[in-house]
Amino acid sequence: MNYQPPLDDIHFILHDVLKAPAHLQALNAFVDTDADLMRQVVDEAGKFVAQVVAPLQAIGDTVGCQWVQGQVTTPPGFKQAYQAFWQAGWPALACSPEDGGQGLPAVLEAVLYDMLSAANHGWTMAPGLLHGAYECLKHHGSASLKSTYLDKIASGEWLATMCLTEPHAGSDLGLVRTKASLQVDGSYRLSGSKIFISGGEHDLSDNITHLVLARLPDAPAGPKGLSLFLAPKVMPDGTANGVHCDRIEEKMGLHGSPTCAMRFDEATAWLIGEPSRGLNAMFVMMNAARLHVGLQGIGLLDAAWQKADVYAQERRQMRAPKPLMSTTPDPISEHPAMRRILSTQRAWIDGGRVLAYQTAVELDLAKHHPDAARRQSAQQWCSYVTPVLKAAWTAQAFKGSSECLQVFGGHGYVREWGIEQIVRDSRVTMIYEGTNEIQAIDLLVRKVLPDGGVGFFEFLQTLTVELNLDDDLETHESAQLLSRITDLKALTRTLANAAKTNIELPYWVADDYLRAIALILLDWAWLQIKQATPADPKHADSGRWTEPASAMRHWVSPEFNLCMSIMQARL
Amino acid sequence: MNYQPPLDDIHFILHDVLKAPAHLQALNAFVDTDADLMRQVVDEAGKFVAQVVAPLQAIGDTVGCQWVQGQVTTPPGFKQAYQAFWQAGWPALACSPEDGGQGLPAVLEAVLYDMLSAANHGWTMAPGLLHGAYECLKHHGSASLKSTYLDKIASGEWLATMCLTEPHAGSDLGLVRTKASLQVDGSYRLSGSKIFISGGEHDLSDNITHLVLARLPDAPAGPKGLSLFLAPKVMPDGTANGVHCDRIEEKMGLHGSPTCAMRFDEATAWLIGEPSRGLNAMFVMMNAARLHVGLQGIGLLDAAWQKADVYAQERRQMRAPKPLMSTTPDPISEHPAMRRILSTQRAWIDGGRVLAYQTAVELDLAKHHPDAARRQSAQQWCSYVTPVLKAAWTAQAFKGSSECLQVFGGHGYVREWGIEQIVRDSRVTMIYEGTNEIQAIDLLVRKVLPDGGVGFFEFLQTLTVELNLDDDLETHESAQLLSRITDLKALTRTLANAAKTNIELPYWVADDYLRAIALILLDWAWLQIKQATPADPKHADSGRWTEPASAMRHWVSPEFNLCMSIMQARL
Repeated sequence: MNYQPPLDDIHFILHDVLKAPAHLQALNAFVDTDADLMRQVVDEAGKFVAQVVAPLQAIGDTVGCQWVQGQVTTPPGFKQAYQAFWQAGWPALACSPEDGGQGLPAVLEAVLYDMLSAANHGWTMAPGLLHGAYECLKHHGSASLKSTYLDKIASGEWLATMCLTEPHAGSDLGLVRTKASLQVDGSYRLSGSKIFISGGEHDLSDNITHLVLARLPDAPAGPKGLSLFLAPKVMPDGTANGVHCDRIEEKMGLHGSPTCAMRFDEATAWLIGEPSRGLNAMFVMMNAARLHVGLQGIGLLDAAWQKADVYAQERRQMRAPKPLMSTTPDPISEHPAMRRILSTQRAWIDGGRVLAYQTAVELDLAKHHPDAARRQSAQQWCSYVTPVLKAAWTAQAFKGSSECLQVFGGHGYVREWGIEQIVRDSRVTMIYEGTNEIQAIDLLVRKVLPDGGVGFFEFLQTLTVELNLDDDLETHESAQLLSRITDLKALTRTLANAAKTNIELPYWVADDYLRAIALILLDWAWLQIKQATPADPKHADSGRWTEPASAMRHWVSPEFNLCMSIMQARL
Repeated sequence: MNYQPPLDDIHFILHDVLKAPAHLQALNAFVDTDADLMRQVVDEAGKFVAQVVAPLQAIGDTVGCQWVQGQVTTPPGFKQAYQAFWQAGWPALACSPEDGGQGLPAVLEAVLYDMLSAANHGWTMAPGLLHGAYECLKHHGSASLKSTYLDKIASGEWLATMCLTEPHAGSDLGLVRTKASLQVDGSYRLSGSKIFISGGEHDLSDNITHLVLARLPDAPAGPKGLSLFLAPKVMPDGTANGVHCDRIEEKMGLHGSPTCAMRFDEATAWLIGEPSRGLNAMFVMMNAARLHVGLQGIGLLDAAWQKADVYAQERRQMRAPKPLMSTTPDPISEHPAMRRILSTQRAWIDGGRVLAYQTAVELDLAKHHPDAARRQSAQQWCSYVTPVLKAAWTAQAFKGSSECLQVFGGHGYVREWGIEQIVRDSRVTMIYEGTNEIQAIDLLVRKVLPDGGVGFFEFLQTLTVELNLDDDLETHESAQLLSRITDLKALTRTLANAAKTNIELPYWVADDYLRAIALILLDWAWLQIKQATPADPKHADSGRWTEPASAMRHWVSPEFNLCMSIMQARL
């Protein structure tokens, strides 16, 4: 079974839960983006994903990408699908009209990539970095560089890469050795080796635009000596640049995406932004990529859940325990252990979708809201929530898709049903764009603690403004959320104090801290869903939202206390 | 790096922690098995594993097994290694001398399979079922069947399979349709299809002995109508039997072991045990197999830990947080997040080894102890601990090997270091020999609750007899274990009562219940290790046992409260 975009769920979250159209139409940039337009775009995206991209999921794994003498061939059908994708205007969805884009809100792009990742993670890696490259070039590129590359990247006619990692420099970019030297014409010569470059070479687009971190001759050591360069595969005059793909990696999964070892051999390149400010320019791209990876986590988990849900309703084994036992085997969807697995994944999927879409809305509020204070709170939201989405939802994609595999029993371990592919594919999301451990350090050590928690407490405050403690239905959950926020603030203060004399301490608890926030955010997301549910009796009746809400309460939310107790024991 | 058997650890656990030689030498069956002999056998086994089996780990995955027209070829080197293995007498280690075995204690076989699974899970699948088949045939086979097959199976000259699953009958064996009909010569004709048969066909041994669940013509429906049969690949007269391998499965991992779809086409077979008592006879084999799978979990996790530990000491990225910061990047083994991953896995490996080896000792006590009460308590130990070892340690093998993969960052996701193979290989251990959910139901619903918890409380009592509440070093941990046991007993009583009117309830909490016991058993195992540690100052000084003990306290043990709170919320 191919992935089916869950359009009803997505509309419900965008419109009923988040009221995204109202928030966005209040901004000058999106006055014309009404609810109908948003529905249409989502429906069309769903059609494209289901008809063009989803059917290529299995072949992406079984045939995979092939490297022969520096050329990479993508699996059959991938190129046609990509050509159809950019020609239909999908990469340009959220790009500015002045660059040939459609000027739609970021949240529609988020919906698109949620569905694309679920349908075919490997294929989706190719366009996945485009919007980040677009933003990076738009904000930091020179006028002449933009005139050649910006509209090609905005449209997706040319794909883009992000060349950071080197064999000895993974999480530690300060160790990057690739060198750049200035030429008389103002261009640079790049030399060095990069590894783990997704889409470093392929046959999907006519040209590939590489964004490369490298070091100028007089640059200081460490991360502050890095500059960012643009090096195309094909030069403007049509000749080949000195950019070579030496091999593609044999990986655990994600065979539909070529992971390339790239060699820049006196390649011609141009500086993006200021010398030695490369990480600053790259940061635009990395931040976009982190939200993107969080969306991959949600999409992959949804794809795994769909497969397991269908299987569990068809497969009959043993009689399920119930007051009136059946006389023949029941569908395994009726067995408690299977129901628990399925509804727990939905709690993460639905809650994650609320948070990721809200983050995409906040991205636009941060850019376009007339009120500076609102722009700042939107900025805070993105800053604190993005690493949590990246780390917690990729971890859940792997753990949860493995639990969905369990629903299939032995049939899950064989290729036939495609569930084991999702487990293998999803594993890399916990690593790339900054390992999940790095996300936790980014959140606690770089963002929360430096101001003693002040900014973070402001953000937490925004989670409580719409809580309704008078409504019987929600009093318990609302009170729990408030009390958890209070506890987390107290712990943060203690931690900030203790960290002054114990510099190791925050590093020991960073993973638990991020996890605790993930659970608070999930509680918040499910309160939003509940507040919207009564408005739609069809949903409320069916158990569609009540069963995962109950899984949230029984099996997901209690872990918060475990995270807190582990942290408290170290203070 | 190939797996290196951790001989010092194994000796320490067998001799200093468990005092296995003293317990075993007190039995008539093992009066000659002194500490020196046990050391020698373990050392020799370690040599064989390291020199012959471990080097074939990668090729088992990359080349894998090949099926051509009904014949299965195992990866290069597998056959030679297997021939050397049985000819050296390893399968016969714990078989009775009257059957050509060496009559050594079961715990030595447990050590052997712990190491073998770590070194090469795929290869080890082939001999892994031998001892269970031997026990099954020995206790239930007719004299004439034994005269042909028992010594060949004891020696391992002929390998054996366990043919249970059918396409529509996975966890629900009652649905088995394979048919057997009696012939005039007292043999049977078997017809039907079996799937997921590990080692159903291969080139490792000259003959394969299939133990097959099937139904006689007049048998009742359901599991009580199943009989067990022996059907050889090659008949005693040298002709081929009607046993066909129609394909091998494409799997997520474990490519070194052929997972066969078998077709019995009027195959000649002989009844083992009584008609319609097949599950009873098969049960001997399944119980042995469950402990075996628990050992696989421990071994696989150890293999993953070894790889990650070596890598973490060599790979330098960023400076680790410490009072006197380095001026250059530190080994990642010094970064808190990596230390946490590594020492947490050791807590599970060491604790699991204590429990699994103790279980193997109890297997022999249950058979050979002169005191009936001690035999009964040994039987209880095996009955309650086996499903916990199977479920919790296979879950940890997958989760923990994935965490070890994380230590490698992007390098863990590519094949080169072999860590992703362990993650893929280990996943199936959560499924086969009864899914982990089935183990939890077996434990709570079939074993603990039927007598209201009485037998289980007797077992829990045995965990407390040697606790030393006067020793300052251990008071805290001992007191915690006692209090947890008290809490679990109270919860069990409430649960047993509530289950009388709510038959679904135990099924909803079975997974948490098993998990809570796993954590209690781990606490117990670490108390045993601590009591033994001061005797060996070399170990105590090095942090070898103190660092995982601290991980146990900080990160593993606290989950007990989570399990309890999840269960309590349903009562």
